[in-house]
Amino acid sequence: MYELGVVHQTIQRAAPQDVEALSKFGVATVHEAMGRVGLMRPYIRPVYTGAKLCGTAVTALLQPGDNWMLHVANEQVQDGDVVVAGCTTECEDGFFGELLATSSRARGARGLVIDGGCRDADELREMDFPVFSRAINAKGTVKATLGSINVPVVVANALVNPGDVIVADTDGVVVVPATKAAEVAAAAAKREANESGKRARFQDGVLGLDLYDMRPKLADLGLTYRD
Amino acid sequence: MYELGVVHQTIQRAAPQDVEALSKFGVATVHEAMGRVGLMRPYIRPVYTGAKLCGTAVTALLQPGDNWMLHVANEQVQDGDVVVAGCTTECEDGFFGELLATSSRARGARGLVIDGGCRDADELREMDFPVFSRAINAKGTVKATLGSINVPVVVANALVNPGDVIVADTDGVVVVPATKAAEVAAAAAKREANESGKRARFQDGVLGLDLYDMRPKLADLGLTYRD
Amino acid sequence: MYELGVVHQTIQRAAPQDVEALSKFGVATVHEAMGRVGLMRPYIRPVYTGAKLCGTAVTALLQPGDNWMLHVANEQVQDGDVVVAGCTTECEDGFFGELLATSSRARGARGLVIDGGCRDADELREMDFPVFSRAINAKGTVKATLGSINVPVVVANALVNPGDVIVADTDGVVVVPATKAAEVAAAAAKREANESGKRARFQDGVLGLDLYDMRPKLADLGLTYRD
Amino acid sequence: MYELGVVHQTIQRAAPQDVEALSKFGVATVHEAMGRVGLMRPYIRPVYTGAKLCGTAVTALLQPGDNWMLHVANEQVQDGDVVVAGCTTECEDGFFGELLATSSRARGARGLVIDGGCRDADELREMDFPVFSRAINAKGTVKATLGSINVPVVVANALVNPGDVIVADTDGVVVVPATKAAEVAAAAAKREANESGKRARFQDGVLGLDLYDMRPKLADLGLTYRD
Amino acid sequence: MYELGVVHQTIQRAAPQDVEALSKFGVATVHEAMGRVGLMRPYIRPVYTGAKLCGTAVTALLQPGDNWMLHVANEQVQDGDVVVAGCTTECEDGFFGELLATSSRARGARGLVIDGGCRDADELREMDFPVFSRAINAKGTVKATLGSINVPVVVANALVNPGDVIVADTDGVVVVPATKAAEVAAAAAKREANESGKRARFQDGVLGLDLYDMRPKLADLGLTYRD
Amino acid sequence: MYELGVVHQTIQRAAPQDVEALSKFGVATVHEAMGRVGLMRPYIRPVYTGAKLCGTAVTALLQPGDNWMLHVANEQVQDGDVVVAGCTTECEDGFFGELLATSSRARGARGLVIDGGCRDADELREMDFPVFSRAINAKGTVKATLGSINVPVVVANALVNPGDVIVADTDGVVVVPATKAAEVAAAAAKREANESGKRARFQDGVLGLDLYDMRPKLADLGLTYRD
Repeated sequence: MYELGVVHQTIQRAAPQDVEALSKFGVATVHEAMGRVGLMRPYIRPVYTGAKLCGTAVTALLQPGDNWMLHVANEQVQDGDVVVAGCTTECEDGFFGELLATSSRARGARGLVIDGGCRDADELREMDFPVFSRAINAKGTVKATLGSINVPVVVANALVNPGDVIVADTDGVVVVPATKAAEVAAAAAKREANESGKRARFQDGVLGLDLYDMRPKLADLGLTYRD
Repeated sequence: MYELGVVHQTIQRAAPQDVEALSKFGVATVHEAMGRVGLMRPYIRPVYTGAKLCGTAVTALLQPGDNWMLHVANEQVQDGDVVVAGCTTECEDGFFGELLATSSRARGARGLVIDGGCRDADELREMDFPVFSRAINAKGTVKATLGSINVPVVVANALVNPGDVIVADTDGVVVVPATKAAEVAAAAAKREANESGKRARFQDGVLGLDLYDMRPKLADLGLTYRD
Repeated sequence: MYELGVVHQTIQRAAPQDVEALSKFGVATVHEAMGRVGLMRPYIRPVYTGAKLCGTAVTALLQPGDNWMLHVANEQVQDGDVVVAGCTTECEDGFFGELLATSSRARGARGLVIDGGCRDADELREMDFPVFSRAINAKGTVKATLGSINVPVVVANALVNPGDVIVADTDGVVVVPATKAAEVAAAAAKREANESGKRARFQDGVLGLDLYDMRPKLADLGLTYRD
Repeated sequence: MYELGVVHQTIQRAAPQDVEALSKFGVATVHEAMGRVGLMRPYIRPVYTGAKLCGTAVTALLQPGDNWMLHVANEQVQDGDVVVAGCTTECEDGFFGELLATSSRARGARGLVIDGGCRDADELREMDFPVFSRAINAKGTVKATLGSINVPVVVANALVNPGDVIVADTDGVVVVPATKAAEVAAAAAKREANESGKRARFQDGVLGLDLYDMRPKLADLGLTYRD
Repeated sequence: MYELGVVHQTIQRAAPQDVEALSKFGVATVHEAMGRVGLMRPYIRPVYTGAKLCGTAVTALLQPGDNWMLHVANEQVQDGDVVVAGCTTECEDGFFGELLATSSRARGARGLVIDGGCRDADELREMDFPVFSRAINAKGTVKATLGSINVPVVVANALVNPGDVIVADTDGVVVVPATKAAEVAAAAAKREANESGKRARFQDGVLGLDLYDMRPKLADLGLTYRD
Repeated sequence: MYELGVVHQTIQRAAPQDVEALSKFGVATVHEAMGRVGLMRPYIRPVYTGAKLCGTAVTALLQPGDNWMLHVANEQVQDGDVVVAGCTTECEDGFFGELLATSSRARGARGLVIDGGCRDADELREMDFPVFSRAINAKGTVKATLGSINVPVVVANALVNPGDVIVADTDGVVVVPATKAAEVAAAAAKREANESGKRARFQDGVLGLDLYDMRPKLADLGLTYRD
């Protein structure tokens, strides 16, 4: 898949109203609404408590220990984007810190998701610039080798195409294809409405066994109750 | 050991006053009072800062990627219980979230310890429903395969029998057999009283070398001081 | 390298004014000022949010599951020191807790860095006694086997000599040789001054591509822009 | 559960003919015959290619970095036993090597399963003394702290009672309760007979879809074939 | 990206002569010839020493602890294919063993690459049926939940499209897009020819410093030689 | 400690007769003879079964994903040396392969120890060029950033000075300071002589309990035998 040394300047971002709609849901809800696909591996974690984001992906393919492409990415960032960075190999160096965050935000970015490390964690929290990474690491990086911008990239085992919607919160990071954003937002809304009814029932002490009518199937499979 | 497809409805819980007594101590103290046994592996972590719990175990044996038995467990929960879930294999999926927590609390549960993942971490923190898990993960689970309820289960390398007292805080999770709860609570109280005397001495600058009379044994073993 | 069973009582600490100077910078800045060497592996993490420290190293070499040498270390601690503990093997037991912290602080210590586990995490946070460790673990330790104090020790893959300056915050832990402390502090100050100019430019929307004049080199290497 | 400082000298070993019967099956088969319980976590690996064993458990509970109890265990070993060692915490030190293996074999042991490290891996292979461990590590251990012999012990998340049958090969390690050994051996034999019929069918190109009559259920669940 | 519950029966396989051409090269060479993209993460390892394979991908998307889709995959296998299986989450269960291998081979498969565990490792070695997996694990799986066949799937962080060429040996697993197979095979041949000239020079004691004319650039960057 | 961009051309190698003497012992024996210090962490493993080496260290400090310094190192290699490479951060890329091995051997090197990955594992085995690494990985590296040669370097948590003796086999990798090589070789010989006497006793069925006179101390500590 990957091309190296290329910057794609024109990408098809998800429609703003769909991004807006998706931003109202948590990652677990969006992931369910997607049919349980598109989730990054759970080793990607928020850098500070309470970090969350929703925006359209500008993708970056990085080389290990080299953050050059994050500078190149910032030029492609538009208001409402999220930089989403994969790496050609596993690397936990600190590719990103407060200066890059300042630059990225000035260009309109809502945050970063990176299959690598970041640093300046305290400053990022103070700025409330949400970063989701695999490590916090003071180790800096060089600028020596080309990667690419706005190519499809695999990040924490999830495929991200430029323009996809990225939703991230404490529960993880999910990728919604740009063309499915409206459909997924609708499904998420429906799911959430459905859950609020269930919540009230659970609060009243109704069991999932009854609410979901599980008892017959459990009995069929042979579940046995003993005193 | 394990039986699959069985729900034991009658279990011998530790006496309420013993649970109450144990609830006043931290995990490190209880673990010492146990003689340094019964601790889960430290990869089980609180889902939010400040989570802690103490209660009697309703155990669940889960299948990978399948949270069906957690619904079955809720029916067995009584006031003051903690659901303690092991899995037949390693799995970090999000077996548990806010709806199950709502149901579990409505039945009287004080929290969950799970050798698996959980989701809705923000909502759990808002509810202050303490969960100790090996991962936070938006990935949901199915309801397809039987496990068991209230069988002995190994969770993070610790054996848990139904009715045992579970004490969990930032330092980890410890399992106190129901029949030893009173004895362990007494030992913990004694230990804590002993420590408070030592604390004052340490604050005064007395060294452990002197307070514990370590110098002769260190010298015997050949510890050498050089300028 | 290591000697076992030895306590060196006389060490050359970095000059207090150099420690003071270094204490004003974050770990990422100091690591850059060092020329990007001397950083511990990122698995060493603060035990509580906001922990940070800067001081001179009293080193301890520990045996697995044995914290005896931490008591011996406390006698060598002077005002402004940090205890820095390696282990002869990998071990995540809880070598250190609130009583040792009380003793250590009474002797003048500013905190602990340990390639092992610690416990009493809540109490450490309440005391604001900064600990950087590889695990939180209620499992206690014995006092049976000799290690050493104030020998050179490797901690999380970084060499620490007694008297070196240790700077630790959310981004990690960096070791500054005592003889280089003044030089590194000066370089850090220079770097920080330099960064503040850049920060303003970035806030104005200037790109790193221009600020660092990266475009010619990227073009030389063949970076290609496509629509 | 665990008692420390105790050696139980009398244990109920599985019947020799049942051990003999179980020794003819691989671990995957025995695990299926058990109903898919009793398997150790897969981080326990054979120290050399081709290692396998089947015998009755003499259990040891070890302290980190301390192999004293393995010497105590050897006195309890009878012909046909396997030493099965857990540890009160995670430790990858080299608890066991060629001299202990020589002693253990002289007492009648058929091998070792240890939730820790071992060393002298080349010599163990030359002796063909099968060891299943979590690491190979030259780091030696001390003899300073008591554990126990022939108490129930959790090893790699599996509960082992003294006298249980341990079956280990390249696929892992499974624990068969002494009282179930005959029943499990019979189930394993039945399963293997059943598999040999299937094997022939598969070799002829018959699909599992047909052999197991899966197509209707797949269709029911909505599996869709497209060109 | 992923659809669940779908079997694509028609895929565009790489041309047989291109697969044949690629089969002559090692993974490291093919990966270089690809421009250093398309490599799976190195946690995927051969199940036995000497395993290697080259063929066209039939992809499978699995659910955790559920190997149903591997049976469905076998129906789609043609001579020269390799089954390549991802999972919707991390799971190290033993999804695949000797019976499935027998069936898969009877349909023409050359091996399996799976981001999960496999079992019957000894039998697979005896059959010389090459499997590349993340674990060896006796834990079996169920047949309860739908995945998909011949959808694009991410396996160990590499995107695999049905029909792509998979090359695997001791050094890892690389994915060559079907449409690039000829071009990559040519580049690999060229690279290998080039290397054989270098090999002879190295054997004569010529240094890479001279063979690759590195000295000027090293000097430019400031490399300093000291006695 | 580390300087970057420097090649030290003159180093003090351990005396050849001491290296020769040490080469007769296994790593576990040498590590014991060292007093149980100087061992690398056990994640460094031989790339092929049976790999072993003993020689004097030429050290290299590498940058992540960059093997340039291994070419520079080869110029410093003399007959009987071992290249020992650390990295400024964790990196599992394939820094080293068959061509570099060919060059290294032509210069007199006996093998490589690297806190990184290597590739061409099959070719290395065929050449019998022993490599001890943390990963096997086809991912290649660039030549862009300076490290250093023959500076002290920490490799897998062990400090290595240029000229130290490196002994590596299946049990791990141990570092013997050049000035202690003779003393350690003598201690290893003594230890091995001592062990051969014990081996015979163990073969006769004598227990370690008696051979090492452990019973009184075990009784003192309270070890209790029960029927």
